Formats: sequence, structure tokens, C-alpha cells
Amino acid sequence: MRFAADVTADGIREREFLVDTVPGVLWTPADDAGPRPLILMGHGGGQHKKSAGQLVRARHFVTAHGFAVASIDAPGHGGRPEDPQVARHTAEFRRLAEAGEPYLDELARANAGRAEFAVPEWQATLDALQAEEGGPVGYYGMSLGSAIGIPFVAAEPRVAAAVLGLAGHRSLAEPAGRVKVPVAFLVQWDDELIARDGALALFDALGSAAKTLRANPGRHTEVPAFELENSARFLARHLRGG
Amino acid sequence: MRFAADVTADGIREREFLVDTVPGVLWTPADDAGPRPLILMGHGGGQHKKSAGQLVRARHFVTAHGFAVASIDAPGHGGRPEDPQVARHTAEFRRLAEAGEPYLDELARANAGRAEFAVPEWQATLDALQAEEGGPVGYYGMSLGSAIGIPFVAAEPRVAAAVLGLAGHRSLAEPAGRVKVPVAFLVQWDDELIARDGALALFDALGSAAKTLRANPGRHTEVPAFELENSARFLARHLRGG
Repeated sequence: MRFAADVTADGIREREFLVDTVPGVLWTPADDAGPRPLILMGHGGGQHKKSAGQLVRARHFVTAHGFAVASIDAPGHGGRPEDPQVARHTAEFRRLAEAGEPYLDELARANAGRAEFAVPEWQATLDALQAEEGGPVGYYGMSLGSAIGIPFVAAEPRVAAAVLGLAGHRSLAEPAGRVKVPVAFLVQWDDELIARDGALALFDALGSAAKTLRANPGRHTEVPAFELENSARFLARHLRGG
Repeated sequence: MRFAADVTADGIREREFLVDTVPGVLWTPADDAGPRPLILMGHGGGQHKKSAGQLVRARHFVTAHGFAVASIDAPGHGGRPEDPQVARHTAEFRRLAEAGEPYLDELARANAGRAEFAVPEWQATLDALQAEEGGPVGYYGMSLGSAIGIPFVAAEPRVAAAVLGLAGHRSLAEPAGRVKVPVAFLVQWDDELIARDGALALFDALGSAAKTLRANPGRHTEVPAFELENSARFLARHLRGG
């Protein structure tokens, strides 16, 4: 891991880094050396490690709960190159969507292709970050962040709790069954991208004994603001205990 | 309203009362005169105004959030007489259950009968309590507490937010559609009494723009302890603002 820019402002230290060729960012409380929970935070499709939603969540997790938060760019996002086969699935998904034809299977294939690269990238990032941040580890990721996060959490025993959601493709049911840690799972009741039945079936498929579903009215990008603090409290309960 | 026993212990003042012939209890913080939210708390079937779960919830709401909490015995509960027609539905529901036959429609008829009496009883209780407790009003009730609470909240404009759940009979969909205030709705994913599809359909039927579903693994009586604080925070957010 190589750290680059290191800036502290408004009580938050922000360090950019590279793990191999993957760019990431680590946010920590400026005035506190830990130990503290580390939240690995995957971004949604079309976003990147420092897009607006990521910054809002990171700021809340760091300043209200004293967590460390790390984010990396997903394959094909934030300027990273896309794998040729993923690029073909993405082009086909866009073609189908523009033609008004069903496209979710093709989008799921593209995201599954990204997850094949992203899971070991997250694992290498965690390997490197644990020298800096030795505390308990959680994961937060919606949509593409769950298409990557579900197989990642299933594969990675160091992750002790996760907030997932805005996902429901049947191809995620198998890795979801291998997730055993506590999960909070967010559903948007009027999601235009994720079928409600699919989202509920994916919650059902999670292998976690402790899982909790939070569903709210609204479309894919309209998760209510209060769920951010709910998610932070969920992670704190499972990573800090009590 | 006539107040009877008035006892203060462990920071909680407990006053028993009668509204007409309905026995109730009001819990308030011992050392604080308000104004504060008032939570009307209906109990489940076979329980009563001071059963163990009611006491746990009342203690948390009063001591952790400074709410006032009131509870009354439902018709046919806590020593109150049962209406003859409700008694017939209840006897038939028990006979069907013991015979291993479908009984939920009959149970819903019994609870609907109780609600016909209980809705005006809650309204009279609120009339009387508002002289004592003038703050914003919320409702909390699961199972029978929702079979009564859904038509009550639909009918009573003074209730500004509600926590409902463990209910899913289609006969509740009509009053649920008339509920317009914020609702947190609890579902037990493995509820042996309430069909999952029915519970999700009842959440869907709620007329509230701000509604949030919380579902957790487990049977009817196994709502996780952390949902109590979640419910308190939901009520605080909508009754206190901010």
C-alpha cells in the first residue's frame, strides 16, 4: 500500500492510497488514534470511491461514530479500466435498456464480472489496511456495492457485520446463503431497478442468523436519510458490542 | 377519569386510573413535568395493560426517552368481560385451532369485534389524559395491539405517529389505507400466526407517505430486543421533531 495525499479538515483525516493499481481512500477521525471499527464502503454503479453519497456516509460514520472508513474504486469505475467481457455485458445491458427490453440479467452478469475482480481487490485492501487500522471490520454497500459486497462478505471471514441492499438478482442468492454475519438489508419499496419480490427473496436467502430488513417507500436512489444513522448504529452494535 | 393507586419507584411514577369502566395505567418520569410525547400502548392478545412486555416497553420509553406512556386493558382482557359475539368467535377460533383447521379468519373476526369497543375506549382515554399530558401523541401496539391500533390510528387525528406490526389479516387493509401518519411496521419473518405475504401486503396497504418496515427472523413473540430502542427513536423523531 502506498499512501499519497494526506489532508485533514473538519475533524476528518483523508488519506488516498493505492493497493497495487486500485485507488482507494481512508477516512479517520483527526484527533483519535483508535482502536476503532473499520468500515469498508463499496459504492454504487456509475459512482466512485469519493462520489457525493460516499462522502456523506463517510463523514457521518467518522464524526458521529468514530469509525475508520475505506473506499476503493470498483472495476470500470472512477477512471479504472473495464474488463473486456464486462464491457460487452455492459454494452448489451445498455442496448437492451434503450430498446425497452428486459436488461437486469445482463446487468447482473456485468456486476458479477466486476465482483470477480473486486473481491480479491477488497481482500488485498483489507490486508494492507489492517496494518493501519486493527479494529473490527464491517462492510457497507448498496446496489453494485452489494453485488460486490455479498460475495466479498461471504468469502472474507474478517468482516463481522454488513449493511447491504438495493439488490435482488437471483444470481446473488448462492453467495448470500454463505453470509453468516449480522446483516442489515435495505429495500426500496418502489425500486424501479430491483423487483420487490427479488429483494425480499435475497433477504430470505441470507444465511445470517441475525439479519434485519428495513424497507421504505421510494425509488432506487431515494433511501431515506434516517437509514444512515440506523446503519451506523447497527454496525456499532455488532462491531463494538453492547 | 378517576386516578387510584399512585406509586413512584426507580424514577417512574405509575398511576392507575379508570375511564368509565376501563382500567388503565399512566407511567411518567418521576422528576419531570413535561411537556413530553404521550405514547398510547396497546397490548397483545392474552396480555393485559401491565403484562411483562408492557412493563419493559414502558420503562424504556419513560426512562430512556422521557415519554409518558398509557395502557388500557382491551375488551375481554385483564379481567374485563368479553362481548358475547366476540366470545363466540373466540370459542370457534379455539375449536378450529385445536382441530388443526384454518382459524385466522375467525381470530380476525374476534379481534375486529374487540376493536369496535376499543377504538372509542382509546379515544375517551385520550380525551381524559390530555388534561394531564398535553404533548404530541403516538401509538404503539403489536398483534391485537395493531388489530385495535390500525382502526384507532385511522380514526383519531390526534395520533401523529405509530409503531404497528405482527399483523397481516386482509380485513385490516381498509383501515390501514386510511392511516396517513408515519408508521414503523414490524414483521417477524418466521411468524407462525401471521402469513409473511399478508404482513407485507398490510405494510403495502398503509396510506402513510412515511412508513418503514422492519423485519427480523423469528416467531411471533420473538421480536429482537433492539427493535424497542429503534421504535422509541422512531417515535421521538416524529413526535419531537429533528
